[in-house]
Amino acid sequence: MNTPELGLPVPVPAEGLPARVRIHEVGARDGLQNEKATVPTAVKAEFVRRLAGTGLTTIEATSFVHPKWVPQLADAEDLYPQLSDLPVSLPVLVPNERGLDRALALGARRVAVFASATESFAKANLNRTVDESLAMFEPVVTRAKGEDVHVRGYLSMCFGDPWEGPVPVPQVVRVCRALLDLGCDELSLGDTIGVATPGQVTALLTALTEAGVPVSALGVHFHDTYGQALANTLAALQQGVTTVDSSAGGLGGCPFAKSATGNLATEDLVWMLRGLGIDTGVDLGRLVATSVWMAAHLGRPSPSRTVRALSHQES
Amino acid sequence: MNTPELGLPVPVPAEGLPARVRIHEVGARDGLQNEKATVPTAVKAEFVRRLAGTGLTTIEATSFVHPKWVPQLADAEDLYPQLSDLPVSLPVLVPNERGLDRALALGARRVAVFASATESFAKANLNRTVDESLAMFEPVVTRAKGEDVHVRGYLSMCFGDPWEGPVPVPQVVRVCRALLDLGCDELSLGDTIGVATPGQVTALLTALTEAGVPVSALGVHFHDTYGQALANTLAALQQGVTTVDSSAGGLGGCPFAKSATGNLATEDLVWMLRGLGIDTGVDLGRLVATSVWMAAHLGRPSPSRTVRALSHQES
Repeated sequence: MNTPELGLPVPVPAEGLPARVRIHEVGARDGLQNEKATVPTAVKAEFVRRLAGTGLTTIEATSFVHPKWVPQLADAEDLYPQLSDLPVSLPVLVPNERGLDRALALGARRVAVFASATESFAKANLNRTVDESLAMFEPVVTRAKGEDVHVRGYLSMCFGDPWEGPVPVPQVVRVCRALLDLGCDELSLGDTIGVATPGQVTALLTALTEAGVPVSALGVHFHDTYGQALANTLAALQQGVTTVDSSAGGLGGCPFAKSATGNLATEDLVWMLRGLGIDTGVDLGRLVATSVWMAAHLGRPSPSRTVRALSHQES
Repeated sequence: MNTPELGLPVPVPAEGLPARVRIHEVGARDGLQNEKATVPTAVKAEFVRRLAGTGLTTIEATSFVHPKWVPQLADAEDLYPQLSDLPVSLPVLVPNERGLDRALALGARRVAVFASATESFAKANLNRTVDESLAMFEPVVTRAKGEDVHVRGYLSMCFGDPWEGPVPVPQVVRVCRALLDLGCDELSLGDTIGVATPGQVTALLTALTEAGVPVSALGVHFHDTYGQALANTLAALQQGVTTVDSSAGGLGGCPFAKSATGNLATEDLVWMLRGLGIDTGVDLGRLVATSVWMAAHLGRPSPSRTVRALSHQES
């Protein structure tokens, strides 16, 4: 049997979808942060380098959080300078002013803060109320913008929360507005525990649009915990979203929220987008090879369906 | 941490979707047919019984194919009578008149034939051309309809074929029309190797509608080989499809087509449909418990994301 399916899906565009999507690759940060194994700095650097070689243009590199909380990324100061020659955007997570100082000292031009739509997760993850966390971010965002640094605002638990259950749309809209009012350039709407379904996605995006938030400022960040991530992505694309977060090989999850395994795999996303005729600039074969390489370092197979299908055939 | 996410997704309907979907459960036939292990008849009977207890109303039970080709289902004559008290539809696959004779002798009221949209797969799977296979099905369908037996026509390789690559839409429409002209009551459009993306689904369904095929006669049968099954299902629902095939726990695949692993898991489908406020009548907790039970018999975990998420929490 020859295997044309080894290559790529047939591009058949669907009406009302964007022509291009920017993938915000989170594997090196959100992914590795949530792997049990701590990956050597040289492997991380090679990972980001290989990701950049696939055509990805936005690769979140690391986090300037206190090493006590995320020991997996304690090498941010060592790693980040090794990536300075790469012709891609390399956002970094900064939890507070101390993190911002560290990132700016290394020349970071894109940073991200990490907020919660729910009080329970704000308390669990940041040990603050939602409003206290926004107050903590205020000087971070203000100083970053003062240096013309691009700021992304992550918002977790936008659809469901393990303590609170369903999250009311107006509550999410309020925190989104607050983050934008602080000066965030873009938001990433997170389904941290992966419970969302497409109607919820449409409802939230519609409410945000009605609240005056331009869809161009919105990205989506879905987890595949219940297998819903790509269907939710399709719903978001149908609302005009053009920024989608995903993790090469489906690396990572969230250790602070039980069962929040399974970032959407970039390969599964690229398969769908390419099939829809939506340009991402990503070379799927190179990306699969990169995830297979990283899976060997982590000592476990990638959970990405596309990586498994294509790498089984190659082996 | 308490776990409201253990329960069910929040129902948030989306515009333009059907109010009800009928799930055509294929785990006991398409699933077990493609598992390496041959499952004892008593376990199969208990599996179907448990599936019926979840609220599923259409449960494909077995196949009256020659045991040489599908030894896993060689016990059809033993199994089928054990299910006769179940208050659900129990379609069976019949490859030819001999299979139909066996099914009718046991009182089957719903049968299915298995056609291919491509010459290559017709040759590989049926050792016939497409037209020769249609000629083989003609007396099967005619005789079944003469006894007022409901006939489903499976059509495989509707979107891509491992030998031929992309499958032209008019070619699929032609075989669909031919199956309906033979007298099939409904069709199941199969993405046998899982390569389809939502634009292809919309294009095929649109073409079929334009060719005069009522959408009520169409079901969709997606494989999750590249993780696309639920997104494709969403696209099909948006076109008005109300019959979706899936396999409890994601059992099975297709041994005749390389890399065609991964039927859409019924649990992942139910999560999405329930989240969309679409009635299926299925109790997700019971279904997950059934798949966990069957996974123990097969000695491997279910590939369903939803089964994994919910059973990890329960364990």
